[in-house]
This record gives sequence, C-alpha cells and structure tokens, in this order.
Amino acid sequence: MAVVGGGVIGLSAAWKAAGAGFTVTLFDPAVGSGSSWVAGGMLAPLSEGWPGEDEALAFGAASLSRWPGFAAELKAVSGTDVFVADQTLTVALDAADAADLRTIADWVNARGHDLRVLDRAGVREAEPSLGRAVRAGLLATAEPAVDNRALVDALRIACGAAGVEFRAERVESLADLPHDRIVLATGSWAAELWPDLPIRPVKGEILRLRRRPSAPPPPTRVIRARVHGRPVYLVPRGDGIVLGATQYEVGFDSAVTVAGVRDLITDAESVLPGIGEYEFAEAIAGYRPGSPDNLPLIGRLDERVIVAAGHGRNGILDTPVTADAVLALLTDTELPEAKAADPRRFSTVAPLHPGGVR
Amino acid sequence: MAVVGGGVIGLSAAWKAAGAGFTVTLFDPAVGSGSSWVAGGMLAPLSEGWPGEDEALAFGAASLSRWPGFAAELKAVSGTDVFVADQTLTVALDAADAADLRTIADWVNARGHDLRVLDRAGVREAEPSLGRAVRAGLLATAEPAVDNRALVDALRIACGAAGVEFRAERVESLADLPHDRIVLATGSWAAELWPDLPIRPVKGEILRLRRRPSAPPPPTRVIRARVHGRPVYLVPRGDGIVLGATQYEVGFDSAVTVAGVRDLITDAESVLPGIGEYEFAEAIAGYRPGSPDNLPLIGRLDERVIVAAGHGRNGILDTPVTADAVLALLTDTELPEAKAADPRRFSTVAPLHPGGVR
Repeated sequence: MAVVGGGVIGLSAAWKAAGAGFTVTLFDPAVGSGSSWVAGGMLAPLSEGWPGEDEALAFGAASLSRWPGFAAELKAVSGTDVFVADQTLTVALDAADAADLRTIADWVNARGHDLRVLDRAGVREAEPSLGRAVRAGLLATAEPAVDNRALVDALRIACGAAGVEFRAERVESLADLPHDRIVLATGSWAAELWPDLPIRPVKGEILRLRRRPSAPPPPTRVIRARVHGRPVYLVPRGDGIVLGATQYEVGFDSAVTVAGVRDLITDAESVLPGIGEYEFAEAIAGYRPGSPDNLPLIGRLDERVIVAAGHGRNGILDTPVTADAVLALLTDTELPEAKAADPRRFSTVAPLHPGGVR
Repeated sequence: MAVVGGGVIGLSAAWKAAGAGFTVTLFDPAVGSGSSWVAGGMLAPLSEGWPGEDEALAFGAASLSRWPGFAAELKAVSGTDVFVADQTLTVALDAADAADLRTIADWVNARGHDLRVLDRAGVREAEPSLGRAVRAGLLATAEPAVDNRALVDALRIACGAAGVEFRAERVESLADLPHDRIVLATGSWAAELWPDLPIRPVKGEILRLRRRPSAPPPPTRVIRARVHGRPVYLVPRGDGIVLGATQYEVGFDSAVTVAGVRDLITDAESVLPGIGEYEFAEAIAGYRPGSPDNLPLIGRLDERVIVAAGHGRNGILDTPVTADAVLALLTDTELPEAKAADPRRFSTVAPLHPGGVR
C-alpha cells in the first residue's frame, strides 16, 4: 500500500499500517516539512469546546484520550518523549472573555470533562509571569502539549523501524500509483490529487522564541488568550516558546508578513509582558488544511483510496484517532469515534463507485 | 603584509594595498559576515550633521565625496553597481523634530553642502507612500545608499582580481604573524588583538523586508526618522527594504530580541503605514564598532601595526576614505582628511614605541 503525504497524519498512518503487517511505501518530497513543522502542538479539544459543537468535542476528546498510549508507544520505539506541557490555561483579558470561559466550562463539564474556572488570584498563582490585564482563567488539567518537530522526528524513526519505505517523490496523480490501497494524507494539498475534496489552505504564521538570561521563564502550561479578537497561544518548548498564530484565507502564500509578526508580538505582550526579552529565533508560515465544518475528512473515496486530511488547526491533536481510523478502514472496518469525519457528509465528494480510479 | 579582518574596511584596504603593489594576505574565518553583512548602507554624513560636530561632518563628507569614484572602480573590476538609492530624506513626525531638521540644514549648508527643508506637501510629493504623520522633511540630494551585501561581494571579487590571498583563519595574536606590516581591521573585536583600543560593540538589529504584490512600493529614497526618540531608517533594496536599527550596549549578544523586532516594525509603520504588507524576510543582529567620540581609529599603533576600526554606525560610509588613509600610512604618508581619526587622540592608546610588538 501507499501513503501519500508525510506529515504527522501520513507518518502515523504509515507507522500503524506497517505495524499491522502492511507493506507500506510513503511518498513525500520533503517529509514533515509542511504544517506539521509549523504547528504549536496544543492538544486542547476541551478548552476549545463551545455549546452546540458536540461532534468536534467528541472527536477531539477521542483523540486526546488516545494520546498517552500513542506517545508511550512512540517513546518505546523512538526514545523520544514528545510532551512539553501537561496542562492548558486559557485566560481572559476582559469581561466578555471571562464570561465565555464560564460558558465553555459549564458546557464541557456537563459532558463529563474537567475544566476549572480560575479568578485573577488563581491565575496569578498558577502562572506568576502573566500580565496584570489577565482577569480570569480556564484550566484544563488534562490537556497537554507536544513538541511538533520532535513528534515528526519520532514518527520518522518509528516508521523506519516498522519497515516503511520512504520515497522522496511528489505524486502527480493517484492513477500513477500501482498500489492496491492508497492513503491520501497531503493536508492542504489533498484537493490537488482528488479535486472534489472540500479542503483549502488556511495560512498561519508562528514565531519561535528562545529564552535569554534577562527574560522571565516560559509559562509552565500552554497559555491561550484572545487579544483584540485575535487568538494567541504560547506553548512552552524547552527553553523557549512557540507563539501563534495568525489566520488568513489567502491560498498558498508562504510569506511571513510584517503585520503578522507585529500582531503576534503585541498580542503576546498583553498576556506575558516579559516576552520582549526573548530571542526572536524563527518566523514561519504554514497552511492549516481547512474543511467546511472544521472536522477532518477520514474515509474511503473509492475501493482503493482512503482520505485522511482536512484536520484544520487540529492535526497534531487528531493524529492518534486518525491513525486508528485509517487502520480500521484498511482492514475493512470502521472506527465509531471517527464517524463524524466521514467524507461522504459533503455532497461534493462523489459517493463510492466500485473500481473507480479517477 | 597582512590584513586582519574581512569586513568592508579590511577588504577595501586589502584591495587598495594590493593595487598599489603590496603582497597582501587577508585573515578572516568568515569574510564579510560581521557588521558589514548587517548594515543598512546609508551614506548620510550631511543628514546626520549637528552643530558642533565639525570633525564628524568633515570626515564623513570626505568619504562621501570619494564614493562615486570608489564605486566606479569597483564596478569596473567586479561588474557590480552597488548603489540602491540616490538621495536621503529625513522626516519629522513632530514639531521638535521639524525644528531639528531646520537646525541641521542651516548648520550643514553653512559648511558648503546642500540640504533642502521640505514642508508636508513637499514630502508627500517626493514620497507619496509615507504616512500622514510626517510633517516635514530634510532632503539630501547628494546622499545615496549602497547595498552592503553587494558591496561585500564586489570587494571580494576585487580583492581576488588584485591578487589578495584569503586565509580563513582566526588570528589569536598579532605576535603570531610574521608580516612586516599589519592592518588591524576587526571592527568590534579590535580590542581582542590590541587591548588598549577604546572600541566596544554596540549591538544593532535590522529587518530585511520583501515587497509582496499587495504592498506599496519601497520608497525611492532612503527614509530616516525618529519615532518615540528611537532612530529608524528604511533603505530601498531592489524589491524590498532594509529596516533598522535598534541600539543596545550589551556587549557581544547576537540574539535578535522580540522587543527589538516589535520596535522596528511599529516605528516603521509610523513612517510607512503600508509596511505591514511586506514579507518579513530576515531579522539579524550585528555590532557597530563604537568609539568614545564616534569617529573611527585609523593610524599607526607601532612600527608594524596600523589600526582601521571603530567606525561605529558609519563603516560603509567611511570605507573609501579609510582605504585611502590606510594606503597612505602603508606608504609612510598621511591623509590630511583622516587626521581626526588618529588613534593617538586617546590617552589609553600607547604612544609609538619603536619596534614594539606587544
């Protein structure tokens, strides 16, 4: 079988399939160099919950619950512990955001999870380096974060150990591949190989900051906030911080913009005033593979092709459940938790047509 | 003879010396990678004039007047035209700065130069992309700018053509060199090889921006301003802009800081509002080799060693006059225009002691 696309989705599908006995060839001209390389690595489906978005919460929580086991397996084979934080703290800078945090906590906790609302003093006690503008917080004790680049590297090692063959080639058409099974995992580029897929690039920019001696230490938890209506997050990374992320619907435009850098820095300073003393180590842009309803597309496209793409902002979070769902499809079963990701929910994606190599 | 240090000062001294018949070996582990690589490339001694600073004006003007000939010679041998702008426009955002521009114009013009004060409409006509906050300008029609990296590359070519031998080695002590003549041109690091030299690193950060289709074109002239008391400049660079520069007295710390990036962007936006649409192509820090009186040190340290360092913010501007001054010293004469740069003006620099290898 073939896996087309070597981001975290393709890599983990290849690893799991090879472990289940498949002979796997993975095609990617530059493994791990797409959005997997740019991601923040937050695993935060609970903190991102919102009344009415039951399917997103359930799907994200199903993947979150798989992460400890997935990471342990990966560590056993690669030696890498990919976790960089244990918890997530979403903070509010104004009364409206504070009210939203209570709304999220009430709704998510009613579905069996544990989110805790903190007042100003509680936030300050948890993360003393945060700014005085922070007035409330939402603590998710069960939402860790992973180092996306360490994850890519560990998955490459795991794939190699499992016998996955890497081919540094760009696939121009699925019809060119002789394989009996194909997993299409090219993220934002999926529609290039299967035009009906409603997946589009959603550009995002992040900064990677490194602590200098004069700077306050990174927060111990993932810190998320909304500043001037823009989401901002700070993810600890060893001696630094990943600061994200802007969002633009501009197609494939990989330029980091001056305005994006300015917004990220000024928004982050509202949350963590000492961040100006950090080293500006890297600025990079990537593409979230966006879908119309913000859930991925995981399922059969025809007898030969399985899609696993369109994960939007949640590709790292969704990696374990996606790998399990793909493995189920490869063995002609289905993973119940992945039902919401069935690509046939979109009318533009043609129904199954036996033998249809398109 | 040996030249120690391969920035624009060392390279141009080596080129001129080789052209005059000297056998030259240039020592630098990484030619052109220091402050010469980070510079903006402004040649603006007139716009930087200030009542009382006669020596700085005279020295800078002496180098500015040499630039057309120096660049033409360099172009003849390297094929490179290093100029990227013909004029410099310093703008004022408030009444105090506007008054300063008139002070500069009066004082500099009284010394035989041509600076023109522009009102708001004059500035807008000259550079329509500048922001509405700009209320006055000082136009220097005779102050161009050069591409510092093209200059480095052209000087390497010129040195090669003139027979200069490059040795990619770090010199640990001048006593290790067997050469009968040594030019010490290691910029901010000069005191490592001659401890009495009063030269210190003054850190600066710059950004290199690239025009995107949605962005306004770069200004046609060098634009300089002061925003919140901080100097900011925008130097056109083909399809982009070099935006500088921060200033810190922090020793050798090459980290680009988050606060530095933020200041540069927000200050530049006050001058050129459309700059947010540019691509953020590069952020880099370097060290201006600072001297106590902001004039360089060019002269004999003993019978064997000539120093050419401490050029501060003006290394690119001062390159032609420094090369001529060094060549004069090598042939046991002195360049009158470089008298103000005599290192013996500092009591810490020991007077000449015959035969004194230290």
